[in-house]
Amino acid sequence: MKFTLQHTDQKTKARTGLLETDHGPIETPIFMPVGTAGTVKAVHQRELKEDINAQIILGNTYHLYLRPGLEVIQKAGGLHGFNSWDRPILTDSGGYQVYSLGDNRKITESGVRFKSHIDGSMHDFTPERVMDIQRVIGADIIMAFDECTPYPCDKKYAEDSMHMTHRWLKRCIQQFDTTDPLYGYSQTLFPIVQGSTYPDLRKQSAEFIAEQDREGNAIGGLSVGEPHEDMYAMTELVCDILPADKPRYLMGVGTPENILECIALGVDMFDCVMPTRNARNGMLFTSEGIINIKNEKWKEAYIPIDPALGGYVSTFYTRAYLRHLIMSKEILGAQICSIHNLSFYLWLVKEARVQIKAGNFDAWKTAMVKKVTTRL
Amino acid sequence: MKFTLQHTDQKTKARTGLLETDHGPIETPIFMPVGTAGTVKAVHQRELKEDINAQIILGNTYHLYLRPGLEVIQKAGGLHGFNSWDRPILTDSGGYQVYSLGDNRKITESGVRFKSHIDGSMHDFTPERVMDIQRVIGADIIMAFDECTPYPCDKKYAEDSMHMTHRWLKRCIQQFDTTDPLYGYSQTLFPIVQGSTYPDLRKQSAEFIAEQDREGNAIGGLSVGEPHEDMYAMTELVCDILPADKPRYLMGVGTPENILECIALGVDMFDCVMPTRNARNGMLFTSEGIINIKNEKWKEAYIPIDPALGGYVSTFYTRAYLRHLIMSKEILGAQICSIHNLSFYLWLVKEARVQIKAGNFDAWKTAMVKKVTTRL
Ligand SMILES: [Zn+2]
Ligand SMILES: [Zn+2]
Repeated sequence: MKFTLQHTDQKTKARTGLLETDHGPIETPIFMPVGTAGTVKAVHQRELKEDINAQIILGNTYHLYLRPGLEVIQKAGGLHGFNSWDRPILTDSGGYQVYSLGDNRKITESGVRFKSHIDGSMHDFTPERVMDIQRVIGADIIMAFDECTPYPCDKKYAEDSMHMTHRWLKRCIQQFDTTDPLYGYSQTLFPIVQGSTYPDLRKQSAEFIAEQDREGNAIGGLSVGEPHEDMYAMTELVCDILPADKPRYLMGVGTPENILECIALGVDMFDCVMPTRNARNGMLFTSEGIINIKNEKWKEAYIPIDPALGGYVSTFYTRAYLRHLIMSKEILGAQICSIHNLSFYLWLVKEARVQIKAGNFDAWKTAMVKKVTTRL
Repeated sequence: MKFTLQHTDQKTKARTGLLETDHGPIETPIFMPVGTAGTVKAVHQRELKEDINAQIILGNTYHLYLRPGLEVIQKAGGLHGFNSWDRPILTDSGGYQVYSLGDNRKITESGVRFKSHIDGSMHDFTPERVMDIQRVIGADIIMAFDECTPYPCDKKYAEDSMHMTHRWLKRCIQQFDTTDPLYGYSQTLFPIVQGSTYPDLRKQSAEFIAEQDREGNAIGGLSVGEPHEDMYAMTELVCDILPADKPRYLMGVGTPENILECIALGVDMFDCVMPTRNARNGMLFTSEGIINIKNEKWKEAYIPIDPALGGYVSTFYTRAYLRHLIMSKEILGAQICSIHNLSFYLWLVKEARVQIKAGNFDAWKTAMVKKVTTRL
């Protein structure tokens, strides 16, 4: 993998760059649609390419490990072979999902023992095992196995957890660096900064992560319920420590506003289930603001979803028809909203890249934040 | 509407024809995908055109009347304006749905009083009202309001019901012929033959329907649980009476085998929820036979769904991946299976047209029935 920093904004810390992988290039800042179980929910692979312009998608280690399982994926030649997506893929490490299992998981120094949400079977994830699993899944970018602390989190727990995440990282690196990719193309490992909302812990963690000198770095443990001000403060603090010549990935973030603000702080990569999850409930992000399509006001709105955005679903279907589909719980409603929201997120980061290059990012961002937070 | 009979098979009663509507031509024999609530479930409008090659789709009067309701549809310029489908549409009369409501409907000479399955509100459908509703929905082909008798049905009930359906038909015709289309293009009314599985009733009903001299005729009350032999016998008896120079529409039929057999009896138009409903459960119709994608045998089947069929979903995704999607209840699984099955149905009737024109229908049908009834 190769990252080239292309342009740095003068008024903010926003940057554009090019990330080159064996499955093709990724322009940053970028948003990565989430494909939990090897599918971006309700969206065809060709729609991801041709309508949404996705350059990279996510897969989820926890989900893929449980179903379809590693054997099926390995025999397919990895996740790319399995789901026929030939552009870059990033897999999370399963740390976040396992942490979310609550009573159904036990964290020790060795790793995590957890109960499958599908069939109740018991499994062990260790840093070494998670590296091996991600070798089998075969994503271009794989993530270190971390503990993602909840919010709020008392300082003692956050500090101990951070140190364990750091020890786990060393084990991940050891395992990753002594194993080979399985499918003839290269993989890279991103470590994850933790430290909850404590500035001194975040600083300590960012410095530790930076020292590992990997090809890219991630910020985890944010967007878990903390106030936005805390998220922005932690992101800024961490970005200022992480090396400028490597991509920075803010995990699980966020709303269009969050993304714009964090681009301004120097983040290059984002992922979030919000555009697809909210889509299935009829919440649309548009270039003029947020639409709850279930609202009575759209009942006779025979106008496109977002003409300014362009693209098939955003210009072909009317809000009135889409409202009918969502009210009737028709699958096509989820499909249209999902494609639209992802198209919007990818349009937003593309516009951000254009504005950064044009030297106009700060003014554009201020105007755009106003729009994307408006409720229509 | 204009129907031109183009070719009649020598060995069977199969025929090809061209049905011309103000929304474009329909080649017969044709299968019409069912779009109950103004959407063919899980399928985009462009996929219906470009992948499935649908020439006409169905809408359901009962469902559309209840939701989104007539006002929303009328202000959109009819169903075409509402769902943005610009090719022909046929609406059923709601008779079948209302009949299915069981205790929640009461049939009298005047019409049917029924309770909405959505909000429990009470509504009245009369022959006149159903014509007015279908004027508002604005389908190119609209259906008479009939009573669809269940199977088995005692003869007295079937006979009385048939006569009421005939009286209702006269009221439908009176209302239709004294009202105008609302959107500047023409509509045509198809009457429906009833008579359950009683040959003498079917004969009587077919003669009555033929006498009305409408532009096309339909056969209802079949595929409601009777043995296939009865369905074929009734269809043949009725087709032999209905005029040859008008299209014949067999409502709610059926499996690929049913369709092939009924084409051989002289049927021109079909509709059925089977390809889409079964799709959502992972049952696939292919050019080599039936696949239950949930079956363990497809777990590592890294081969296309149906390479011979061509088209995006049938050749791009593997059976192994599709199995994973259906097992995981992922929406994309329903989407892929729905597009595939409808593509197969439209391919089947297209091949039938080719074979009829080539004078090879009978031999091809025999071979094809064997294939489509094979369980892979
Ligand atoms: Zn995390
Ligand atoms: Zn019927």
